Amino acid sequence: MPSLDLPAIRAAHERIRPFIKRTPVFTNEAIDAACGAHLFFKGENLQMAGAFKSRGACNAVFSLTDAEAANGVVTHSSGNHAAALARAAQLRGITAHIVMPANAPQSKVQNVGSYGGWITFCEPTLTAREEACARVAAQTGATLVHPFDDLRVAAGQGTAAVEFMEDAPGLDFILCPVGGGGLLCGTAVAAKALHPGIRVIGVEPALADDVAQSFRAGRRISIPTPATIADGLRTNCTGEKNFPIIQRYVDDIITVSEEGIVAAMRELWERLHLIIEPSAAVPYAAIMEKKLDVRGRRAGVILTGGNLDLGTLPWLKADGKQSA
Amino acid sequence: MPSLDLPAIRAAHERIRPFIKRTPVFTNEAIDAACGAHLFFKGENLQMAGAFKSRGACNAVFSLTDAEAANGVVTHSSGNHAAALARAAQLRGITAHIVMPANAPQSKVQNVGSYGGWITFCEPTLTAREEACARVAAQTGATLVHPFDDLRVAAGQGTAAVEFMEDAPGLDFILCPVGGGGLLCGTAVAAKALHPGIRVIGVEPALADDVAQSFRAGRRISIPTPATIADGLRTNCTGEKNFPIIQRYVDDIITVSEEGIVAAMRELWERLHLIIEPSAAVPYAAIMEKKLDVRGRRAGVILTGGNLDLGTLPWLKADGKQSA
Repeated sequence: MPSLDLPAIRAAHERIRPFIKRTPVFTNEAIDAACGAHLFFKGENLQMAGAFKSRGACNAVFSLTDAEAANGVVTHSSGNHAAALARAAQLRGITAHIVMPANAPQSKVQNVGSYGGWITFCEPTLTAREEACARVAAQTGATLVHPFDDLRVAAGQGTAAVEFMEDAPGLDFILCPVGGGGLLCGTAVAAKALHPGIRVIGVEPALADDVAQSFRAGRRISIPTPATIADGLRTNCTGEKNFPIIQRYVDDIITVSEEGIVAAMRELWERLHLIIEPSAAVPYAAIMEKKLDVRGRRAGVILTGGNLDLGTLPWLKADGKQSA
Repeated sequence: MPSLDLPAIRAAHERIRPFIKRTPVFTNEAIDAACGAHLFFKGENLQMAGAFKSRGACNAVFSLTDAEAANGVVTHSSGNHAAALARAAQLRGITAHIVMPANAPQSKVQNVGSYGGWITFCEPTLTAREEACARVAAQTGATLVHPFDDLRVAAGQGTAAVEFMEDAPGLDFILCPVGGGGLLCGTAVAAKALHPGIRVIGVEPALADDVAQSFRAGRRISIPTPATIADGLRTNCTGEKNFPIIQRYVDDIITVSEEGIVAAMRELWERLHLIIEPSAAVPYAAIMEKKLDVRGRRAGVILTGGNLDLGTLPWLKADGKQSA
């Protein structure tokens, strides 16, 4: 098995460099004035396929031997990992089998299709998705590339932190949202290796606080599928491989409210002029809600993705008027 | 009087460098595939105060002698120039008097106020604005910094094209939206001096086609205040100083429909994950509507600004549902 350490992340970075963007880091005077801190935002919403997931997916796909690759890859995801894996497979010239729930939004189905992914629809339950995924793997010999519980994926995600710490030196904090924990693991391992004094903070919606609960309890805790607006973070339980890494390298897991996520998203849209999806606003919500004291410090926030349906916006009520 | 040539634009660039950002250039595989061209987007929506207007305003303010500066500056504008001038004046430590119509949106009033601008309200007519502006100038001795008909302003706006042509070499076309023509003049002079073979294209909403009409007629034509959604381009007539420069250096002025502007804005939001205001989508609308044949060519588009009210979006109808 591959291990997750800085050399693995550096090797991933070399491997994926031709296929990803080195995304820019943004700062904003008005945000800094409001927070009394120096904030740096890593724009992974501008990454290929619109999310950091392209990093992990490319590392997994380009880590395969030719014999493994010949049978393709398979995953179950209706979100950014699905599109990123389809794109990575297309770049390598192999097949990506994507298991999606039959009720997935049309825009996400089209997104996977635009990268040539082969879609298998299933019932919208975790059990049905895992069963369909196992069946496709058995029939095709495709290699499973799990959305988060895969150390090649986590190593790829960690490359964002390597770039971030080069482009925004001397960070006191680095914050990222937590779904299954792949980004958090990669970020924590890279950041602590490069700058041991940094504090690594994962942020979750309070409605999807499985990792926060697990972190406090010292064991993996599973929750029912969460209803948070942050659709990229609706995981039931962090990965088996990820959890010990989180326990070892992460300083804290903080939770934020749904209202806080919407307010943070809107403020980042207005101030930074960047389109980010709700999941990407979760860490800044922790700063806005004063769940973390960053005053006078340098804090880095990974803006994880920018994919969402522009036909509705969370601060607009159904009547098209602005909500309070 | 200052003249508008490449040395003036280079001098402006040196003068304003500490106060502006060198904005990034974006490309997108899916957009290129859809257009059959190589498109480059200069992200002036990420400029200080959210628009290229910071360039011209800073050049004008920092060109003043100390004696001139002591009396402050004055302009009439309810948009991006007002905020940019207030910011530039604040940076120099002088007063900016901003004449705004009494019905200006609250967000724009707040924006000017946030940079310490002194606001004078007047009736919402061009005559009332000009009279109020002249009165403030007479009372205070403030120097008028016109939003577009000022060659120091145009020289500042031209610095965006200098950066753009360095960062995206070998452009066959450069496109920008046209309101009063300050950006177009600066862009055309810089682009033709640096790369004489480039074609410089101004794009206007068909509802606000005063410069297109003037360009065809060979004389400045004035139109009633246009109702276009592109609120930054609602000018009645191009400037006296600008028009001969446009006649000499600009290859064509193209017009686009309101529907085209909204469609282009939405496509750029979705593909580039950048928030741009309607005016900034106007040049890309010309490409989407096939008003300009860029197939197989390299075309640069200046994304001029990102300031808009996020409480409503032009593709959402009043009932909050998506329009067709």
